[in-house]
Amino acid sequence: MAKEAEFLFDYGSPNAYLVHRAIPAVEARGIVSFRYVPVLLGGIFKAIDNQSPMQAYGHIGAKVAYDRLEMQRFMAKHGIDKFVMNPHFPVNTLMAMRGAIAARELGCARAYDEAMFAAMWEQGLKLDLPDVWDRALTAVGLPAAQLAELAATPEIKAQLVANTEAAVAREVFGSPTFFLGQEMWFGKERLRDVEEAASA
Amino acid sequence: MAKEAEFLFDYGSPNAYLVHRAIPAVEARGIVSFRYVPVLLGGIFKAIDNQSPMQAYGHIGAKVAYDRLEMQRFMAKHGIDKFVMNPHFPVNTLMAMRGAIAARELGCARAYDEAMFAAMWEQGLKLDLPDVWDRALTAVGLPAAQLAELAATPEIKAQLVANTEAAVAREVFGSPTFFLGQEMWFGKERLRDVEEAASA
Repeated sequence: MAKEAEFLFDYGSPNAYLVHRAIPAVEARGIVSFRYVPVLLGGIFKAIDNQSPMQAYGHIGAKVAYDRLEMQRFMAKHGIDKFVMNPHFPVNTLMAMRGAIAARELGCARAYDEAMFAAMWEQGLKLDLPDVWDRALTAVGLPAAQLAELAATPEIKAQLVANTEAAVAREVFGSPTFFLGQEMWFGKERLRDVEEAASA
Repeated sequence: MAKEAEFLFDYGSPNAYLVHRAIPAVEARGIVSFRYVPVLLGGIFKAIDNQSPMQAYGHIGAKVAYDRLEMQRFMAKHGIDKFVMNPHFPVNTLMAMRGAIAARELGCARAYDEAMFAAMWEQGLKLDLPDVWDRALTAVGLPAAQLAELAATPEIKAQLVANTEAAVAREVFGSPTFFLGQEMWFGKERLRDVEEAASA
């Protein structure tokens, strides 16, 4: 019986996308499964005065090059071949993340997560534009209008805030973050550590 | 026959110390051995406008706590039990790193590296004070006066500058950094990646 880990994510994080693509093969080994928990990364950054690696280190060519190398290694290792850097990065993900909560209410979380990650990091779309977001969902048969309506309700907005505040309270500072019980790991390279811990 | 990797280090880096302590057990497996390459981390930071994680993220409690957690995990995994945070951190390592080059000239590199890492991260000494540095070496039978004299020569100073400039040219941005041929890895967690690459 696989143990369940939490995967705290924001569609705006390229490393969260890479983890999303790597997870099926990890889960197929039967040691750990992942429960996707939507959080607003911008909200976490704001709460703790953190910033993305690109903002913090974008002026240091060697670090940017190394981060790219580590992404390439991760993709090679996990057979990920559709990634493109989003030309609109950083994209505001407030609407997309509220939609993630709405999709959970409507029972289409898996298809929604897949559509958003693919739209952001395979199609390179500017997902903070409502019509772009709408078309990305409609194209895969998801009820865009219904999701948009639900995402705009106070309850859904409050749930995303609650997820984000709970993450901050657990000392989350970035994405991807994993929890197995109370044990936390940060970063795509820690996926194998989570699996190792789950097998112990 | 083990492949030889390079381990670029500065005694001032706690994560370089942890790698130094982890290396013997890795080398004992016979897949990879490490050639220690002294570089001046402060010189690298200055050249590329980088800074230490503590300087960049010291105000973000959650990141500091997580870095400490990852250090503890690494220590638990590798049976490292003597680490203490140096109360004088960050310690200027210019003299210690020049001494590292001098020790290589004198054929006592291994004992010198061990003495400096232990003095910095087990004894918590303020190694930028000449008499503290001297005593740390004398205590383990190393020729402190001879090392100090040699470390002050233009040739030794130039060699440390050359090592540091070569590292910057190879896009090194921090410590610990590893090379296997031209392939680079950054960070203590990559030690196992280096070993995996060497076994391929």
